[in-house]
Amino acid sequence: MTSNNPLFINHLNPLSEFSFIQYIRAFAEQQFASASETSLLLGINDDCALFDYDKTQHKAWAISKDLLLEGRHFFKDITPQHLGHKALAVNLSDLAAMGATPRFFLLGLALPSMHNIEWLKNFMQGIFALAQKHGCILIGGDTTKSEHGVQISITVIGEVDTRYALKRNQAQIGDDIWISGTLGDARLLLGHKYQEYALENHAIEQLTPKLELPTPRIELGQKLLNIAHAAIDISDGLIGDLSHILKQSNVKAELHIDKIPRSSILLQQNIDMQKLCTLAGGDDYELCFTVPTKNFDTILDIEKELGIPLHCVGKIISSEKNTSTNLNDTHNYIDYFEYNQKIQLDANTFKGFDHFN
Amino acid sequence: MTSNNPLFINHLNPLSEFSFIQYIRAFAEQQFASASETSLLLGINDDCALFDYDKTQHKAWAISKDLLLEGRHFFKDITPQHLGHKALAVNLSDLAAMGATPRFFLLGLALPSMHNIEWLKNFMQGIFALAQKHGCILIGGDTTKSEHGVQISITVIGEVDTRYALKRNQAQIGDDIWISGTLGDARLLLGHKYQEYALENHAIEQLTPKLELPTPRIELGQKLLNIAHAAIDISDGLIGDLSHILKQSNVKAELHIDKIPRSSILLQQNIDMQKLCTLAGGDDYELCFTVPTKNFDTILDIEKELGIPLHCVGKIISSEKNTSTNLNDTHNYIDYFEYNQKIQLDANTFKGFDHFN
Repeated sequence: MTSNNPLFINHLNPLSEFSFIQYIRAFAEQQFASASETSLLLGINDDCALFDYDKTQHKAWAISKDLLLEGRHFFKDITPQHLGHKALAVNLSDLAAMGATPRFFLLGLALPSMHNIEWLKNFMQGIFALAQKHGCILIGGDTTKSEHGVQISITVIGEVDTRYALKRNQAQIGDDIWISGTLGDARLLLGHKYQEYALENHAIEQLTPKLELPTPRIELGQKLLNIAHAAIDISDGLIGDLSHILKQSNVKAELHIDKIPRSSILLQQNIDMQKLCTLAGGDDYELCFTVPTKNFDTILDIEKELGIPLHCVGKIISSEKNTSTNLNDTHNYIDYFEYNQKIQLDANTFKGFDHFN
Repeated sequence: MTSNNPLFINHLNPLSEFSFIQYIRAFAEQQFASASETSLLLGINDDCALFDYDKTQHKAWAISKDLLLEGRHFFKDITPQHLGHKALAVNLSDLAAMGATPRFFLLGLALPSMHNIEWLKNFMQGIFALAQKHGCILIGGDTTKSEHGVQISITVIGEVDTRYALKRNQAQIGDDIWISGTLGDARLLLGHKYQEYALENHAIEQLTPKLELPTPRIELGQKLLNIAHAAIDISDGLIGDLSHILKQSNVKAELHIDKIPRSSILLQQNIDMQKLCTLAGGDDYELCFTVPTKNFDTILDIEKELGIPLHCVGKIISSEKNTSTNLNDTHNYIDYFEYNQKIQLDANTFKGFDHFN
């Protein structure tokens, strides 16, 4: 069925992550469309897939997996505790984006032989401290020796009410667009680590936990069930991740970039750096979600209750029929504003993080 | 809870895969014991974990994940189609060992940038041909660039009847021990590839599909439900994998090594090589299962129906109280026989495959 499919072949060489995912997705969607399987509720297009748990109680399982490779997703100098925390946190963040409650995880771990049991002990403590906090039980996995640094693959499973699960394709015209926490701190530190610029020590100290110890917004995701329409976690930069919501919901957005929440350290940088880090950063693991205006005050109540800053940064403004065949058309979905003036952004500068570049 | 746990710390340095898994397992079992979660039916000690699907219909989800790293689990010269097949097959093999029916999979894939879309197309064709055969739908995953060869992490999910799922800890005294297919061919070819010896071209041609295109014994696993007591898939060598059943079932076994099924090519090798490849090989992905003697003829019927050779190679002989603290005590669980004479095996020669060596 799939062997002669010419989809995308012509214009996807060389590989980029987005073309790569599109290619795999085309196959997966064909499989899904032709399957008689009814226990699958949501396939490959969201933070998690959803499959049957208990229909009578409207329960589904949500599942997601993320890879973390040394030198690509983390630096060699990260402590094993921090690495353990981060590896589980970025996976839990996908459950948070669906409003799911974590239940289980599987751990795939490839380790160089020079890593000893003390390293492993500390790594597992980093994982288990976060797992225990969320009642998330290790139920399987695989281990092997690596010739090339630490490589981690975690699969997380949570449960969610099928009626209210937060999906990318449910944004509605008129919705407000909200962001949790602050954006851009991880990217600011990454620039220093890649020697684009040099930060002072006190800044490095304050930014390191933002990069290495992200907080998956599990409780926030749960509170947003039946309140928000759509959600995604911000892992590859706000523009790219928000665009996933917009494309899949067939809508456009106004984004007020002056309203995007920034930490005091990021606010000390020049404005171009602030824009780069907040819009096209990555590794934030905050939630971006769309909410009908009638629930505006409810969001402020949730902000108070959880003690997590929540900011309204834009609006869903119109339906957009996606006729573009350009895979780098992210900017077609967003009108940018700065202090209520419409502005243009350079698409290349703000294209978001691509794991293939 | 886990931070001061001194389990295993003292005698597990340096790492081996088995000590490593034991260490992680100790944490996981503590988590499991202290959890109030009731939807988890089987945790970390089997080919798959089992969690709730539909209690009224006795259905559970079975989940497993395996890593495959270039240079460790496959050679750089493998074709992308074969690699795609193998990556999914070794995961499906874990479902087969529980008697589960494949439903979904998630694909984590790290690729060097020199791999182009043609490579990806062929890789995905290898995966999807096998996935389609078993009705297994791609529902998620993650992709990234790799600096160090192709790295694959697949998670498979199947469904199984909770009353009959084949577990490692259910072997009973008096059970016959059965093996599907033939063992040792993959190991025979590996020895050639590692330049331990040189095989002739015709042998290489015949052995390559055994190494690169293993057949997950899904239908066999399903047929064994309510017929067999315990099962495991043979991925790291018969001795090591059978010992998992024996340890977890608290029993011992007689193993008749002359009865272990071998291909015509392996039978052309000297007897020591035959023993090494069948007993401590790896990459076989056949099933080893224990069956009450009353079902002997039923197994022969299944053999005919499926056209898969099934051989009885031993017996569960006694209960064994596991008081050993030696982690390399695999041989304590098995009495070896050759043409009905009890023999001794050198533990170091036949210790099975350790992914950390």
